[in-house]
Amino acid sequence: MTAGGTGDFVRVRLDLAYDGSDFHGWAVQPGQRTVAGVLEAALARLAGPDAATGLTVAGRTDAGVHARAQVCHVDLNAAAWERLAGTVVRRLAGVLPPDVRVMSATQVAPEFDARFSALARRYAYRVSDAPYGVDPLRRHDTLAWPRPLDLAALRASTTGLLGEHDFAAYCRRNPDRSTVRTLLGLDWRREPDGVLVATVTADAFCHSMVRSLVGAMLLVGDGRRPPTWPAELLTRRERAGEVQVAAAHGLTLVGVEYPAEPAQWAARAALARRRRA
Amino acid sequence: MTAGGTGDFVRVRLDLAYDGSDFHGWAVQPGQRTVAGVLEAALARLAGPDAATGLTVAGRTDAGVHARAQVCHVDLNAAAWERLAGTVVRRLAGVLPPDVRVMSATQVAPEFDARFSALARRYAYRVSDAPYGVDPLRRHDTLAWPRPLDLAALRASTTGLLGEHDFAAYCRRNPDRSTVRTLLGLDWRREPDGVLVATVTADAFCHSMVRSLVGAMLLVGDGRRPPTWPAELLTRRERAGEVQVAAAHGLTLVGVEYPAEPAQWAARAALARRRRA
Repeated sequence: MTAGGTGDFVRVRLDLAYDGSDFHGWAVQPGQRTVAGVLEAALARLAGPDAATGLTVAGRTDAGVHARAQVCHVDLNAAAWERLAGTVVRRLAGVLPPDVRVMSATQVAPEFDARFSALARRYAYRVSDAPYGVDPLRRHDTLAWPRPLDLAALRASTTGLLGEHDFAAYCRRNPDRSTVRTLLGLDWRREPDGVLVATVTADAFCHSMVRSLVGAMLLVGDGRRPPTWPAELLTRRERAGEVQVAAAHGLTLVGVEYPAEPAQWAARAALARRRRA
Repeated sequence: MTAGGTGDFVRVRLDLAYDGSDFHGWAVQPGQRTVAGVLEAALARLAGPDAATGLTVAGRTDAGVHARAQVCHVDLNAAAWERLAGTVVRRLAGVLPPDVRVMSATQVAPEFDARFSALARRYAYRVSDAPYGVDPLRRHDTLAWPRPLDLAALRASTTGLLGEHDFAAYCRRNPDRSTVRTLLGLDWRREPDGVLVATVTADAFCHSMVRSLVGAMLLVGDGRRPPTWPAELLTRRERAGEVQVAAAHGLTLVGVEYPAEPAQWAARAALARRRRA
């Protein structure tokens, strides 16, 4: 399917949230329940077959990873969009399962690319170090860590990670792709209920990068590694076997940033495509 | 089983949290999974059979209702307590299912009665009026309301409800029991993510009272009833059929207050017992 084959298409930005627990990640896979698969089925049901094409997401989340503010775009048959535009959020709520919600759907310029126009992705990772484990109502998006964690040590563990680096130590090996990324933000806080939350922002992430960074920092937080260790791993040219990938269910995509000016969407997309190539 | 039959017992206060989704409420019922049943089984496993007796709870939550700060007491064989005291929270975490957590266990004076010494119970009710429904990660403890809710109208709907009243209109009929209660706090707020939260505090609640109050206020919030309506119902001497009981899963017990001075526990318990009689 390509846009334009059966009439005019318009580009629509969808902002969505999901509980990743019962999904095999974002991307469509035969025989698996995935967020993209469920979303495509809902769009087809509302707009008709072949009316929605080219679903593209900002952050391809892994199995079990959640999203509160995922962004994707899709090209929709213009006639279908005209019919749906005013009511599409409520209609999607009626046909989507409760573990996926589309919070808004807006027509955007065709230069908007949910993946390549993005300036940054932001993830939050939630960990409880309480002796009792995790608040039952948050157990689906919070990791239980069996040892006490020191907030100061977690904060110290971020030293030297910000900026552009080759994150090969923290990425699943893929010889065809660069593992250079720019880490734009990394901090830890303890919430009033005691849960520790890491917020990690980068231009883009390679596969398992957030969970690997968190896995390394947690070993600093519970005293098993020195605060300098996570940054020292940046000298590695391949994945560091000592770093455990933190469990998927603690991770949530909480934001995607785009240039405010639509005129910048195409330029940003061209730049990001060159960098990924 | 009664305390003292096989040796000395000590009274232990347990603070606990649970996701009520998969429980048929608090109280033990044959053939049903209940919080008390699961907790008694865990205590018996750790302390031995007949070592824990007289489990008594502050707020007997209904099926599907959650708790973040429930309080109960239990009388534990003194030898078992001595053996367990330092590690009981971690041990309980190991034997309880993840939808129940005991956050603390502390020996208290035998005058402490989790039910009758309590000064007040506080509940929170979460409602989303977003067109898309509910954030998937909070769908287990948040009601989706299909119409827009007005915060000012919700706040106005609380007028005249505070204080001591006969809440018969809001209680499941029980001719043997008084339906006079003292409502100590009642307010609505809209959280940054848009969710509306009612916080309801009373000395005690009769059955389904919080959910009935919320059900009435929601009809004011969406414009179908005037703000004066919930208070007008206080003149009724029996349950008001027009009031729908709001769904259980939006409701969470978030706090129980006791006299700060242990010396007041017995007096408070005696007073509460007289009132309930």
